[in-house]
Amino acid sequence: MHKKLFIPGPIEVKEDVLEKMSTPMIGHRSKEASKLQRDISDKLKKLFYTENEILLSTSSGSGLMEGAVRCFTKKRAAIFSIGSFGDRWFEMAESNGVEADLFKSELGSITTPEMVEEALSTNKYDLITITHNETSTGVMNPIEEISKVVKKYPDVIFCVDTVSSAGGAKIEVDKLSIDVCITSSQKALGLPPGLGICTVSERAIEKARTVKNRGSYLDFVQLYDTIKKKDYQYPSTPNLSLMFALDYQLDRILQEGLDNRFNRHLEMAEYTRNWAKKYFDLFAEVKSASLTLTTIKNTKNISVKDLNAELGKRGYAISNGYGDLKEKTFRIAHMADLTLEDVKELLNVIEEILSLK
Amino acid sequence: MHKKLFIPGPIEVKEDVLEKMSTPMIGHRSKEASKLQRDISDKLKKLFYTENEILLSTSSGSGLMEGAVRCFTKKRAAIFSIGSFGDRWFEMAESNGVEADLFKSELGSITTPEMVEEALSTNKYDLITITHNETSTGVMNPIEEISKVVKKYPDVIFCVDTVSSAGGAKIEVDKLSIDVCITSSQKALGLPPGLGICTVSERAIEKARTVKNRGSYLDFVQLYDTIKKKDYQYPSTPNLSLMFALDYQLDRILQEGLDNRFNRHLEMAEYTRNWAKKYFDLFAEVKSASLTLTTIKNTKNISVKDLNAELGKRGYAISNGYGDLKEKTFRIAHMADLTLEDVKELLNVIEEILSLK
Repeated sequence: MHKKLFIPGPIEVKEDVLEKMSTPMIGHRSKEASKLQRDISDKLKKLFYTENEILLSTSSGSGLMEGAVRCFTKKRAAIFSIGSFGDRWFEMAESNGVEADLFKSELGSITTPEMVEEALSTNKYDLITITHNETSTGVMNPIEEISKVVKKYPDVIFCVDTVSSAGGAKIEVDKLSIDVCITSSQKALGLPPGLGICTVSERAIEKARTVKNRGSYLDFVQLYDTIKKKDYQYPSTPNLSLMFALDYQLDRILQEGLDNRFNRHLEMAEYTRNWAKKYFDLFAEVKSASLTLTTIKNTKNISVKDLNAELGKRGYAISNGYGDLKEKTFRIAHMADLTLEDVKELLNVIEEILSLK
Repeated sequence: MHKKLFIPGPIEVKEDVLEKMSTPMIGHRSKEASKLQRDISDKLKKLFYTENEILLSTSSGSGLMEGAVRCFTKKRAAIFSIGSFGDRWFEMAESNGVEADLFKSELGSITTPEMVEEALSTNKYDLITITHNETSTGVMNPIEEISKVVKKYPDVIFCVDTVSSAGGAKIEVDKLSIDVCITSSQKALGLPPGLGICTVSERAIEKARTVKNRGSYLDFVQLYDTIKKKDYQYPSTPNLSLMFALDYQLDRILQEGLDNRFNRHLEMAEYTRNWAKKYFDLFAEVKSASLTLTTIKNTKNISVKDLNAELGKRGYAISNGYGDLKEKTFRIAHMADLTLEDVKELLNVIEEILSLK
């Protein structure tokens, strides 16, 4: 039996979107391939409110995160972490010999603009990475306020991980002066996994040209120069199946309307938070709680594993806490094309299983 | 109109295999995901005649080629090239600061065992890379004979690019003592692009542990250790759609029978070569001609571009020459699930268009 996924990726993919994954192949050096990839870029620019270029990478979002810290750091990277995915970005820098410092917040807390100011004011850094939405803790960072600080340091390249928020929360790349905004297909965009997606500023690319030892497959300059030279074709054979599905899904997203989509995510988040406060508690403060998933403090000391097993029998899946937060928290994702009705349905089933009513 | 693809990847994918790409999502940390990925590994071990471990990478084959040269070279890499894809492997080494030398053969010629002997006998190298099948020239290297030379140097890690041959030609990994045998989904395996696949020996992994600066996403050690620790689950969210399709397609391949499959490829190759010799000429010598595609010397000075345009109108696609060989050659791929009947059909249409009969 298929389980309806309320986990933070892979997510529930609409049937008509899944069908597009079965589109017969085309040559990746054909005019059709150029058109497909150009169309996708045009539509993604709308989603990210940007005139910057779009790059697609046949990899997970992690691939692009690694490529970014390697390609755009010449002096030293300031890596801010509010959980597992921020820590991972630091490990990526280290494993590539990129000089970096890690600035960690307590689990459940945000990266504060003050922390960013303190770090950047040392003038030691030429790259900063921020996690927009941390799926381990359900915290969403105040990206607008952080952006105001980063703007004061024009030599710093601003990289943001929006892997689990893009498509579910408004991220105005140009307004926030984000140089590199990274996401992937299998979260709030509502597609299967396998494609990394990002926006990249021209100044970031020009800087990367002066950075040595950038590698090849995850090198932003190689991706950028190839799509410019070859009319949106990529250096290696790209994941065409996901391109077909992404092109179609972006039409669906733009047809829904971006503001409608973000409002739907807000409604689902608010409903889930209120439910969590009624029966359990929130792991993060409401003002920094994520729009795409809710991490719930397991105040009733239930067995999350058993709950998920019961949910599985009824055709649903949620997530246990991440890493050290296992069984101390549990996570309900409400992203992509799920609706408020879906969320209500799930929460009702949980109430039944746990005899909460 | 869909064009039947006789190009060296992406290839024509069977309808039932394409349908598997639409399988609804599952959690990538679920037991189902472990089972799926373990089953795939078991089946791929049969295809590669190996007991070595299988690694899947959500990237193209190029990603794994880069990871290999970076992870397994401690002293210096000897990179043998018989065309564009060998050259690319050298560029990957350079872009990662890996010490390497490039040994090029003339276009259309093989890497000879003597060339390999001469290089390795200097004891300068601890890694060697060989292209098994070069899709730019249609040349297949004598991997058995080269293997006999490499075996004399037990400290050398033996990496082979079988991207465009695995699944179409017999590659006995253990018998040939190949440490790292790399392929990808969109060639003779008969699937859409988006997944890199390789076999890796334990001694290669143990060596990689002593190599610094291996990066993260394309790090073989991270992939290997994660599947061992997490029951065949991968560090990042993998391309599940292609996993579903690959699992199904491997059943189809094993049901056809490996020897039957390789014979079918041989039959298609021989028929195409004979046709080429009748009307044009072969670019490579017959004894080193590829089993999965034929590069034809354009002795009649036809416009390959015009031929392909005409073919397109009738629902077929072949490839122009690669790089410098454009218009001087053209390429017909006969791989994956194409049959001799498909090849005859295509060649008949070409004869009609060019009034060859």
